[in-house]
Amino acid sequence: MKTPSPKTTRRGRPARSDQQAEASRSLIVESARKLFAAEGYEGVSMRKIAAIAQCSPAALYTLFPNKRQLLRGIWEELFFELLVQMDGVYASAAAQDRVEAICLAFVDFWLQRQDDYRAIFMIEDRLQGEQDSYFVDSAQVMQRMAIFRRSISEAQARGELRAGDPVEMQNVLLCGVQGIALNLIGMPEVSWGDPDKLKRATIHALITGLR
Amino acid sequence: MKTPSPKTTRRGRPARSDQQAEASRSLIVESARKLFAAEGYEGVSMRKIAAIAQCSPAALYTLFPNKRQLLRGIWEELFFELLVQMDGVYASAAAQDRVEAICLAFVDFWLQRQDDYRAIFMIEDRLQGEQDSYFVDSAQVMQRMAIFRRSISEAQARGELRAGDPVEMQNVLLCGVQGIALNLIGMPEVSWGDPDKLKRATIHALITGLR
Repeated sequence: MKTPSPKTTRRGRPARSDQQAEASRSLIVESARKLFAAEGYEGVSMRKIAAIAQCSPAALYTLFPNKRQLLRGIWEELFFELLVQMDGVYASAAAQDRVEAICLAFVDFWLQRQDDYRAIFMIEDRLQGEQDSYFVDSAQVMQRMAIFRRSISEAQARGELRAGDPVEMQNVLLCGVQGIALNLIGMPEVSWGDPDKLKRATIHALITGLR
Repeated sequence: MKTPSPKTTRRGRPARSDQQAEASRSLIVESARKLFAAEGYEGVSMRKIAAIAQCSPAALYTLFPNKRQLLRGIWEELFFELLVQMDGVYASAAAQDRVEAICLAFVDFWLQRQDDYRAIFMIEDRLQGEQDSYFVDSAQVMQRMAIFRRSISEAQARGELRAGDPVEMQNVLLCGVQGIALNLIGMPEVSWGDPDKLKRATIHALITGLR
């Protein structure tokens, strides 16, 4: 349960408008995102983030009690962008290409944000106490990935994919696309050959295997 | 280029035998592995590793100049175990099941070593200076994954997989198996359903797609 934010501060000043608070929050998240991407999650202090975001450490700690909460803020922002991108692809692709196009969009999203990917995924997501939960909170993330399941169901209805639970098929595809991103971004020294070819071949093999 | 280790110390004592040095190295790597798995890579100091391995910090730093070198030692040890396991699977599986069996063995290896997986893969593998290289050094790792390519080539020769570059097919399969491990171990809060079913369905879809 979230405590509702007080409308006035202890000193009786009126609370800043929601819009101002949101702008300040965005600036902090954006500053942290750039710093984590450039210098790595572990190497960046809360003090440095506050300095770049031009807010006091106290104000930063009020919004984000620790670095991990900031990482969660960045993750949520990126995840929202990813969903918007996949929605756009769904709308613009021909019906029979949608499942493949969404998988490609997922991989491309992270290939275009490799620094963010490393900052977000290549750290240990350890729980910080009992109140904490993983970034990828099951219900929310999976609910919002509905565009995957919708494309799969529609392809099944057209006879392009075999019958089966769309959630299970989505999860199979998510293993594929996550693995492509992990290998290409997390292990850049491996000779993967042409990244574009690997990406397309893997997604194509998976979808063909689900027919 | 590695500097050859001196045969005598500065004080003129005879060097310990290679066997002793190897035993000491193994004990340090094993201690670090347990500590990283239990407490996370970032939370463990070189001093603590030395204490658990019952060696002096100076001796530890001589063998491993920094924590990252230790992580590399652990990674190499695990990778060797993985190769041994895959070789065993190749030897025991029926010919037509080998590609699938090796993929399953790869995933199962990490599912049985989830703490190690998190310690090794879920940190930022940042290069520490120009002399440094990524753990996954292209030539070595990929050369030693020969069992993958051999199984693929043999399946092609029997007509069970379509013609094509075995290296490219290996890389496609590696994306799949890495993604399964990443999702199941790195995002345990996502409702993936039965892990065994997801693992088998993903590998099966990939191999079917390569037929």
